[in-house]
Amino acid sequence: MIPRPTPQVDAVPASTPFVAPEALARRVGRDSLVRLGANESAFGPSPRAIAAMQAALPLTSWYGDPESRDLREALAERHGCAFENIVVGAGIDDLLGLCVRTFLAPGETALTTRGTYPTFTYHVIGYGGTLATVDAKADGSVDIDALLATAVATGPKIVYLANPDNPSGTIAGAADVERLRAALPVGTLFVLDEAYVDFVGTTPIVAEGIVENTIRMRTFSKAYGLAGARIAYALATPEIIATFEKIRLHFGVNRTAQIGALAALADRSYTADVAAEVARGRDEYVALGRDLEIPTLASFTNFVCFRLASQAHAEAMVGALLERGIFVRKPGAPPIDDCIRVTVGTSSERAAFAAAFAEALDTRREKATR
Amino acid sequence: MIPRPTPQVDAVPASTPFVAPEALARRVGRDSLVRLGANESAFGPSPRAIAAMQAALPLTSWYGDPESRDLREALAERHGCAFENIVVGAGIDDLLGLCVRTFLAPGETALTTRGTYPTFTYHVIGYGGTLATVDAKADGSVDIDALLATAVATGPKIVYLANPDNPSGTIAGAADVERLRAALPVGTLFVLDEAYVDFVGTTPIVAEGIVENTIRMRTFSKAYGLAGARIAYALATPEIIATFEKIRLHFGVNRTAQIGALAALADRSYTADVAAEVARGRDEYVALGRDLEIPTLASFTNFVCFRLASQAHAEAMVGALLERGIFVRKPGAPPIDDCIRVTVGTSSERAAFAAAFAEALDTRREKATR
Repeated sequence: MIPRPTPQVDAVPASTPFVAPEALARRVGRDSLVRLGANESAFGPSPRAIAAMQAALPLTSWYGDPESRDLREALAERHGCAFENIVVGAGIDDLLGLCVRTFLAPGETALTTRGTYPTFTYHVIGYGGTLATVDAKADGSVDIDALLATAVATGPKIVYLANPDNPSGTIAGAADVERLRAALPVGTLFVLDEAYVDFVGTTPIVAEGIVENTIRMRTFSKAYGLAGARIAYALATPEIIATFEKIRLHFGVNRTAQIGALAALADRSYTADVAAEVARGRDEYVALGRDLEIPTLASFTNFVCFRLASQAHAEAMVGALLERGIFVRKPGAPPIDDCIRVTVGTSSERAAFAAAFAEALDTRREKATR
Repeated sequence: MIPRPTPQVDAVPASTPFVAPEALARRVGRDSLVRLGANESAFGPSPRAIAAMQAALPLTSWYGDPESRDLREALAERHGCAFENIVVGAGIDDLLGLCVRTFLAPGETALTTRGTYPTFTYHVIGYGGTLATVDAKADGSVDIDALLATAVATGPKIVYLANPDNPSGTIAGAADVERLRAALPVGTLFVLDEAYVDFVGTTPIVAEGIVENTIRMRTFSKAYGLAGARIAYALATPEIIATFEKIRLHFGVNRTAQIGALAALADRSYTADVAAEVARGRDEYVALGRDLEIPTLASFTNFVCFRLASQAHAEAMVGALLERGIFVRKPGAPPIDDCIRVTVGTSSERAAFAAAFAEALDTRREKATR
């Protein structure tokens, strides 16, 4: 007889948060795709980070520092906190899992926006929690009032907010985030996922500083161009960080990634250049939408949602683009499941997308008018 | 009020499986140490693996394949199984956590040898399980009969065997392992950690092949010299692998690590050379022990345990070596807590250890005879 998983794991349905571009390429018989579906940085890591990592590789035979001391000290300086306020993990996905495991007992409820970043939901279900959601607003933005009212009425153990939001790309302003956070019931943990914060520009999103009920997450996967390195961090009280220390995977973070992240963090002008180039690409996508008469959602990230006529149209468009060698994704939940979500690529990738998108729209319009 | 962790996590005592050499170096005010304490490969990764990783680094902005398809296919060919029999994780530590989370419900019991590889125990406690142990034999080797008798009598959910064992370095023969595995109660999962298997040489340790009640773990951290890359894999039935798929961190493995592991796996002659050099170093340590009149435990790994006069003597020796800039560890539990465990280094590292060890022993003997 096969050893049985725990009843709790047994009850988890089989699901995959994301089908990878490698699998999609295999599906359509291509070696590779134009990758505009996973919000990876088209501009790569800082050359200084690449050089630091290349120099470090011969010592890959050594374990990385399980305390990530050098990186945490640099991050503490950047954020004006102590290294005891920081935990480093193998991406925000890893840290979300750690949060859920630590704070959400089986059967307890986590509240978030329907359709937001699915890996949080994946961990809630995976650890036997219950998911409660409120709908986003019609324009794709998070409904802070609805989150707040539901949190106050029901007292969930965790409230999760991705800000800027993924997959919509929209942002909640600093005052709204602060209002939500301050109103949360005693004992509710606020998980603030700021993966895309480096693309926001000058819009203030939330005050810096460690707050007792909050875990803030930042990543090197987006503006720093280190998605493949799997490295991110969370900021919280020393009590919360010490609790993570009791159960986290101490040797989970790649040594070269730690060295690359440290170098990337120091290269501020490179990250600023990437953010500026992303802002230009975002404007280009908005202009493209205008030209093609396809509305776009407001974006403060490195991707833009194009709003098509229907959910079915959006799904067909993902397929039509894939056939043309272009990988994009679509949001899974209303009110924005009529969108395709397109990462800001390099200028040639943007041109390839624009051409394929226009062609696929034309093909469809021709069919519709035939 | 601070959000409270789950009662189960709250009950976990604060503990750290290993203090890192970086932290120890800071403690004694050194920039670095001769690293002979973490069983890292002194011979580094294959030059082909380094070259493949260096070439891959500019694309660190891409996520790695969450299915690790290329690597799993290569591993499947190596082991004569299907890729559906394989899950890739961020080191055996990660995979042990996944096993415990998947199979050991809070309160259920895992059985192993007292003092064996502590990260398994760490996860058992971290997930709210109960640990049961049997003692190792006087020579440091695992007591298969005791494990078998206890497993049959008590029906634990998991039996964990590191073979070769860490920290003793000893091995259980293929017939013994098979006898234990075949005798396990229905529903008991056998977790066989073969991290050091590549150093065993021609001694058969256990038949290849997928067995229903068994998860076998292999790593790229030891003979392949990729400890810092965090990449390992487990072999099991497709049913077990599919269960892992429901809850595992899909994007947890570094992209460059996957590419490095694939190249390292292909470079069989390099790994064979490393194993041969390790065997030479092991013989040298045994000869050193003989010269110094310090017994050594039988080793089938890349480390050797030197048996000192007492637990206190071993602990003092770890400190004395650290003061001399040499990092070694000592087993934490009897009957081998009177040992220091020393990784096979390069020939100059071995010489540095031999000199420091002899000196520290002399200092102690002088004190004793004064």
